[in-house]
Amino acid sequence: MSEQDAQPTGSQAGAGAPVRVALLGAGTVGAAVAKAMVARAELYAQRVGAPLELVGIAVRDLGRPRDLTGILPDLLTDDPGSLVEDVDIVIEVMGGIELSQELITRALGAGADVVTANKQLIAQHGVELEATAERLGRTLVYEAAVVAAVPVLHVVSQALVGDEIRSIHGIVNGSTNYILDTVARLGVPFQEAVQQAGDLGYLEADPTEDLEGLDAAAKIVILARLAWGVDVTLEDVKREGITGLTDQDFEAARGTGQVIKLIASASRSGSSAEPRVEVAVRPTLVSADHPFALTREGMNMVIIDSESAGSLRLSGAGAGGDETASAVLGDLITLARARVAARD
Amino acid sequence: MSEQDAQPTGSQAGAGAPVRVALLGAGTVGAAVAKAMVARAELYAQRVGAPLELVGIAVRDLGRPRDLTGILPDLLTDDPGSLVEDVDIVIEVMGGIELSQELITRALGAGADVVTANKQLIAQHGVELEATAERLGRTLVYEAAVVAAVPVLHVVSQALVGDEIRSIHGIVNGSTNYILDTVARLGVPFQEAVQQAGDLGYLEADPTEDLEGLDAAAKIVILARLAWGVDVTLEDVKREGITGLTDQDFEAARGTGQVIKLIASASRSGSSAEPRVEVAVRPTLVSADHPFALTREGMNMVIIDSESAGSLRLSGAGAGGDETASAVLGDLITLARARVAARD
Repeated sequence: MSEQDAQPTGSQAGAGAPVRVALLGAGTVGAAVAKAMVARAELYAQRVGAPLELVGIAVRDLGRPRDLTGILPDLLTDDPGSLVEDVDIVIEVMGGIELSQELITRALGAGADVVTANKQLIAQHGVELEATAERLGRTLVYEAAVVAAVPVLHVVSQALVGDEIRSIHGIVNGSTNYILDTVARLGVPFQEAVQQAGDLGYLEADPTEDLEGLDAAAKIVILARLAWGVDVTLEDVKREGITGLTDQDFEAARGTGQVIKLIASASRSGSSAEPRVEVAVRPTLVSADHPFALTREGMNMVIIDSESAGSLRLSGAGAGGDETASAVLGDLITLARARVAARD
Repeated sequence: MSEQDAQPTGSQAGAGAPVRVALLGAGTVGAAVAKAMVARAELYAQRVGAPLELVGIAVRDLGRPRDLTGILPDLLTDDPGSLVEDVDIVIEVMGGIELSQELITRALGAGADVVTANKQLIAQHGVELEATAERLGRTLVYEAAVVAAVPVLHVVSQALVGDEIRSIHGIVNGSTNYILDTVARLGVPFQEAVQQAGDLGYLEADPTEDLEGLDAAAKIVILARLAWGVDVTLEDVKREGITGLTDQDFEAARGTGQVIKLIASASRSGSSAEPRVEVAVRPTLVSADHPFALTREGMNMVIIDSESAGSLRLSGAGAGGDETASAVLGDLITLARARVAARD
């Protein structure tokens, strides 16, 4: 069914019927997504070929004051279930596991495509959710779940789809990198640097997520699955956080011209057709002129090594509301375009 | 039309009818593509859902000895026109302008999708070729045309499709970077470094392509078009090569803690909906600790600055047969998957 010219909005922008979008979550990322959808409405309509209509925003607490400038207040609801049954695309940025999983499953079942930024959900239940999406002929995407706007999932699953990836190494957690960088470059004692990162709000509500490498483990599991199509789980990750490090470790590193970085890694042995994959997260000594050593403060960097392409490096901010929203919005526009194309 | 189970090749690999592929050109890149298609036949069949069948390879001179281990010699032909009429996908890696343009246009007309690595062709005639492809409902892709395997086109046109790109800056020509790096780090006199790059085979057959920034100009034109949807041409590029540089320039840079790099840039002013774009290629002073300064030898690096994502950096080898083939093969698999999906 084609509805060309139904709603002309300047030139040919947004000629088709609106693509209906529900947003689950209005925290830092959700608010950035909602604001961008308002501010870029005309641009997105041009890019998609139809306007995007934000039909509702689910929040936990309607009473909580929030900055959603430009958003109609009656779009807010505390009943997320009411939003997932009758839309084209659901964006899940509420976090958590059980409720998110249930809502995404319901959304897919009701015919929606889904964007999520929920890395623990994808690491723990991504295989089932993708199987559900595939069975229903729907699409589930989650570029934002791994190092925010740094488009490493696009590169691993699309750009390198004709290549054979050998390994992926990365600094994929900004909070621990901030701590390690503060110690290495500014000489701040380790415990003080941890305290400082907490005070600046760089650590997750549960700081063990960052400090014990759980966040990094989720990301490397997702990357390994996409790179080799293997069912790696969080239990497979050889994981060591940074809490066991001491100032003596940092001094010893400095003495040998090295720095300590928390490196997440996934390496293939065996052939690409029958890969065996090792995944790990651990503090690692790197030479002071290595690109990882030059990855400062909260920055992330991923190095992907492939048979044909050789070594590719990607870096940028691995966290932040706007940065994460960039990836969510990229997935949103891609899904919306595909839905509009499928109307013809 | 679905032909599931017609040709089972282990598990579910390659269950559908073959996707027919023609290869135009068997130089460094073409040979790498052909060999990978043989070596990875099973892997590609798994990824595509149908085997890829290489139906022919067009070369200029059938008599020339060439290393195409594993390729049946009777696949070679010196009549490229015979290959483009009856295949699903045409890969153009022969270079040149007129004949490539004609063959790609014929291939699209005959219902094929097209992968090309031909940056000058896309910079000069990409707008017409894309219009032809769109009119015919076909797809033309060219990730390999810009910095080989570094997936900058994927990032600009897909990952950042929900964002607003402000600027793109890059070291996008490996030969000139090799020369500038040799002078800056090893203190080799400029003219000697140019000579050395030529002796090592790092310069194009016509060295002005590299030295005068024509190669970089073609790449930044392609990037600017994809980033903002504007019809930028080679004539719009404010272009200055490196041939005017002298050893005094390098000494002066060194004296101020800087290095000279050949930077291609594209910057937007105005809104994303109505962008004005400036494109330039010129020798530029960068501070010695800037990521560009740390881009050594023949490496390339592109920095993309966007409203939401902030600054993203991508780097890797910007040339080489295998590296360029990686991008060609990625495009090939993506197109082949889409064709197989469209059969259902």
